[in-house]
Amino acid sequence: MADRTEHRLRVGVVGLGIAGGLMVPCLLRHPRATLAGVADRDAELRARFARDYALPVEDEAEALIARADVDAVYIATPHQFHRSHTLLAAEHGKHVVVEKPMALTLADCDAMTEAAARAEVALVVGHTHSFDPAIAEIARRSEAGEWGSLAMLALWNYTDFLYRPRRPEELDTAQGGGILFNQLPHHVDIARLLARSPVRSVRASTAVLDPTRPTEGCCMAFIDFVNGAAASAVYSGYDHFDSDELHGWVSSTGRRKTPRHGESRRALSSLTGGDAEARLRATHYGYGGGSNQQRGVAQHQPHFGTLIATFERADVRTTPDGVAVYDDDGVHEISLPSSSDGRTRVVDELCAAVLDGTPPSHDGAFARTTVETCLAIQESARLRREVVLH
Amino acid sequence: MADRTEHRLRVGVVGLGIAGGLMVPCLLRHPRATLAGVADRDAELRARFARDYALPVEDEAEALIARADVDAVYIATPHQFHRSHTLLAAEHGKHVVVEKPMALTLADCDAMTEAAARAEVALVVGHTHSFDPAIAEIARRSEAGEWGSLAMLALWNYTDFLYRPRRPEELDTAQGGGILFNQLPHHVDIARLLARSPVRSVRASTAVLDPTRPTEGCCMAFIDFVNGAAASAVYSGYDHFDSDELHGWVSSTGRRKTPRHGESRRALSSLTGGDAEARLRATHYGYGGGSNQQRGVAQHQPHFGTLIATFERADVRTTPDGVAVYDDDGVHEISLPSSSDGRTRVVDELCAAVLDGTPPSHDGAFARTTVETCLAIQESARLRREVVLH
Repeated sequence: MADRTEHRLRVGVVGLGIAGGLMVPCLLRHPRATLAGVADRDAELRARFARDYALPVEDEAEALIARADVDAVYIATPHQFHRSHTLLAAEHGKHVVVEKPMALTLADCDAMTEAAARAEVALVVGHTHSFDPAIAEIARRSEAGEWGSLAMLALWNYTDFLYRPRRPEELDTAQGGGILFNQLPHHVDIARLLARSPVRSVRASTAVLDPTRPTEGCCMAFIDFVNGAAASAVYSGYDHFDSDELHGWVSSTGRRKTPRHGESRRALSSLTGGDAEARLRATHYGYGGGSNQQRGVAQHQPHFGTLIATFERADVRTTPDGVAVYDDDGVHEISLPSSSDGRTRVVDELCAAVLDGTPPSHDGAFARTTVETCLAIQESARLRREVVLH
Repeated sequence: MADRTEHRLRVGVVGLGIAGGLMVPCLLRHPRATLAGVADRDAELRARFARDYALPVEDEAEALIARADVDAVYIATPHQFHRSHTLLAAEHGKHVVVEKPMALTLADCDAMTEAAARAEVALVVGHTHSFDPAIAEIARRSEAGEWGSLAMLALWNYTDFLYRPRRPEELDTAQGGGILFNQLPHHVDIARLLARSPVRSVRASTAVLDPTRPTEGCCMAFIDFVNGAAASAVYSGYDHFDSDELHGWVSSTGRRKTPRHGESRRALSSLTGGDAEARLRATHYGYGGGSNQQRGVAQHQPHFGTLIATFERADVRTTPDGVAVYDDDGVHEISLPSSSDGRTRVVDELCAAVLDGTPPSHDGAFARTTVETCLAIQESARLRREVVLH
């Protein structure tokens, strides 16, 4: 299936929104993959891409998926299409990377995993920030026993998430809107990769603080792992405090940013007209838009807020340029090259699966448990009690 | 009982350790109180005090408590004496401030509250960092409805607590050692004052990471309040990461400090001899010692680590000099005078109770619930399940 003569995987990008827009340059410079083409229903995004590259541009996902010169697809369509597009790709014998959340129900996750297994295609779920080089570095050293076992993991992220321009369904939890399915998976994936143990139970609280954005915008979750490690994930997307202030004002994509407290809310409040917000979402945050996330080359490490991992013999913290290790001898920093990022590592996992036969760590089973954990967080907050996972 | 002609309360300090040593200057400059004398069993601490002040110095608590020129006592003796010293003071008709933890059992808390009520003396429990001016300022504005209701409260503190010199019983949880009874009360008191609602349940994890200091040194607790607010308290005393790094390198007592990662552990490891550690605790951290906590005047606000409170309309964060408010309009800071601190406010509460008849907010009932919450945190970690409070 893969173009094994060249050993480069030809990947099509389905959906040129935020995630797809960030994946395009990543595929273009990847050593083992090439960008085979794109698909999007939005004419403006297609036109922007066509101006930049002489590559196939389709308006429907199936048209791209069906192409003979496409080995794999990156599915970055709205959540409600993840299942059908993944099944479509598997039916066409194409390998799949599907964006998080994998799906909104465990039944959908199972259908996707089964379809990929039946078709014998690779299935990788990402990107989440658990692919970030700093997380991989901590996981690698932790697995090697460098600091002893993990006792607790503190995760904080305060962002403007809820006030970035949204399509209506993105503000409806039942349709996968809000932070529970879009931001918590980052925290949960990071915690699971670093704890290296099944989730045993969760206890969580969530809140809807702005009735004009009627979906969960903040969450506090206690996660207990079978091996005794615990994680506390705190998230708010209400565009008040910005935890990048504790991270040298480096954004989640590793770009230097200017402090701009409350700017997203104010920008949104200036919009008028029925679909102005959805249009802004597509044009500013989609492929070729002017959003900060795509501006310039990342000079620093991508991250998902403040992270402090307490091991037996050291505390470990993610920093703008790597990982700080606080151990018995003091503090030292592990510098990481800014040339790699989490999305590159998504493609690495896909290529390793298809070209080398190495099973991906972020496969369907891994992602299903993250969906299960996020659903348990939602249930715990609703019932106001601890929820034990199966 | 109080010297009402002068309207200044004559307070004796029982115990010249860390807490007593910090209370001495606070009483000396308080506008409504005077320092009436001190008591300590340690001859060196008594000699130091006698060199500095021409005030009564007793070697036994009862001798100070029984003095006719003492209206109230500040009990800063080891935990195991809190009950007996409080009862003794009540029997002598003296008002009481007792250090946290109030006691190690609810039965002891009840006995102390009842003794104070029977003797009609005031009972204040403190100091904890919930007395800090920044916490009081947030509580006051929160109560006035300035930011809407509280949704979540994130509390982080990473210190060298476990590696400060200790007496043997301070490393034995059964005798009230470790962070559960000595550090968590700060977080719990702060959370309770800001949530302004009873604790409904807790879910927590604790760990003993150093077998040579065999008591809980780190903890992660999820606290659910009846009104729906939630708090996450994360604490580690393992002298690895120091969260003052996120707080402008200002110490918990409001003093500028030099980054000194791992210094406490190294200083401790250089000690030799059976009681060298206990002696160092008394001499370096007790009255007149050279510890950083007593060095110079505090130029900044006292604090207990990083605090972010998420209200409906603002996130609020404690800073070195006050409180930062992140609301819809951006960020602004509420500056607080460095002349006031938490210990002064402990004495304020005592004086208001005795001289004005104003019931203290940190009374026996308040402190009992904090002990109950800390015991529930311990039980939740042991049973690995949520514990609902009565």
